[in-house]
Amino acid sequence: MDKNPDMYSQHISQQFNNELEEIKNQLLSMGGLVEKQVSDAMRALIDADSGLGKAVRRKDDDINQMELHIDEECTRILARRQPAAIDLRLVLACSKAATDLERVGDEAAKIARHAIKLTEEGEAPRGYIETRHIGSRVRRMIQDALTAFARFDPELAFRVAQEDKSVDLEYKTAMRELVTFMMEDPRSITRVLNIIWVLRSLERIGDHARNIAEHVIYLVKGQDVRYIGLKRMKEEVLKDNS
Amino acid sequence: MDKNPDMYSQHISQQFNNELEEIKNQLLSMGGLVEKQVSDAMRALIDADSGLGKAVRRKDDDINQMELHIDEECTRILARRQPAAIDLRLVLACSKAATDLERVGDEAAKIARHAIKLTEEGEAPRGYIETRHIGSRVRRMIQDALTAFARFDPELAFRVAQEDKSVDLEYKTAMRELVTFMMEDPRSITRVLNIIWVLRSLERIGDHARNIAEHVIYLVKGQDVRYIGLKRMKEEVLKDNS
Repeated sequence: MDKNPDMYSQHISQQFNNELEEIKNQLLSMGGLVEKQVSDAMRALIDADSGLGKAVRRKDDDINQMELHIDEECTRILARRQPAAIDLRLVLACSKAATDLERVGDEAAKIARHAIKLTEEGEAPRGYIETRHIGSRVRRMIQDALTAFARFDPELAFRVAQEDKSVDLEYKTAMRELVTFMMEDPRSITRVLNIIWVLRSLERIGDHARNIAEHVIYLVKGQDVRYIGLKRMKEEVLKDNS
Repeated sequence: MDKNPDMYSQHISQQFNNELEEIKNQLLSMGGLVEKQVSDAMRALIDADSGLGKAVRRKDDDINQMELHIDEECTRILARRQPAAIDLRLVLACSKAATDLERVGDEAAKIARHAIKLTEEGEAPRGYIETRHIGSRVRRMIQDALTAFARFDPELAFRVAQEDKSVDLEYKTAMRELVTFMMEDPRSITRVLNIIWVLRSLERIGDHARNIAEHVIYLVKGQDVRYIGLKRMKEEVLKDNS
């Protein structure tokens, strides 16, 4: 269910509508690329494919350039079109979401770097299964946050924020296990540390997905829901503001 | 040398000038508080003062609220005043710098959490001296980035970006030493991991200081200098755009 056509304010200029649609599409393309980077970085790790890891690292600059481009477009629209209400919120949300996506790209590049190191150092240490599982969950969070953005769907966005809390718990459990493993087998320290850094990156990717979800709620509901906790966030999302 | 009075565009409305000045002052106040949080968190770590650590954690929400407030003000100015050129860049730079400062606050709260843990676990492990040194350097970076913002000084901002590169090198060296230490004395693993997380937070604080510095260069020079490398950044900073 795509709610877009009704969402923007009524503009005299069709051109302005096109510009808003265009900036949103650019953000979603950037999101698609970033999500692929996360997925490729995890595949490089699990399949011990250092070639794929290197490809992820090379592509990181494309993502940086996409962020610059989206930000430039947002600034241009602010200066020339002087948007208000939902249009203004859309432009600001795109600019902020682009920053979050760029950071997700950075984390994917870091995961790729650890994948390359682990591949070079040989056999896989313990902790892969949990990492793989958390990896799938945060990838799904990025996908859902982007879908929520595409559809202006605050309820889906809320579910992403909920998921982030649950991923954080799984992250903590996995981290404790890895620390225990290092203590039991100190020869594994450097290798396990690589997995620990990957886990940390995944946890941060989850945070960024949650940020993007919060931008979507702000965009649609006009309410900044950062730092208010899940309970109040849910109330804001369910509030009828039509 | 305060260049402010000449920086804003000439406005018919003195009120608008006041609003721009006010948003900048709010950002600088937030910066002052965040810098104190970093400094208190490091003191809690070094003096094994868990009371101070807890105070830092309590104050983190004040910083979150300051970010929300600044962001709200920025959106209000964009909607009502429809700023252009340097005024628009100032509003956008304030909004972005507030996000970076809020993240620095998060890292300070994390450092405080590790300080509390380390205090509870007793005696101090190796790695404090390097951590302390890197801590002073990143605090100085935050200060300088804020001074550069207050004075619209792109050259000082550039020096912050330069410093970030050098701090990253020191961080890597300190990290290698800590890993070696864990391997030599596996009983220290959990304690050294706490120091490792503190180091990681400090490195990220340095990154945010660099981001703020880049916002200052964008604000004054009208040029987005992210991802272009220090050499080209310096050229942009020295370029005469008067």
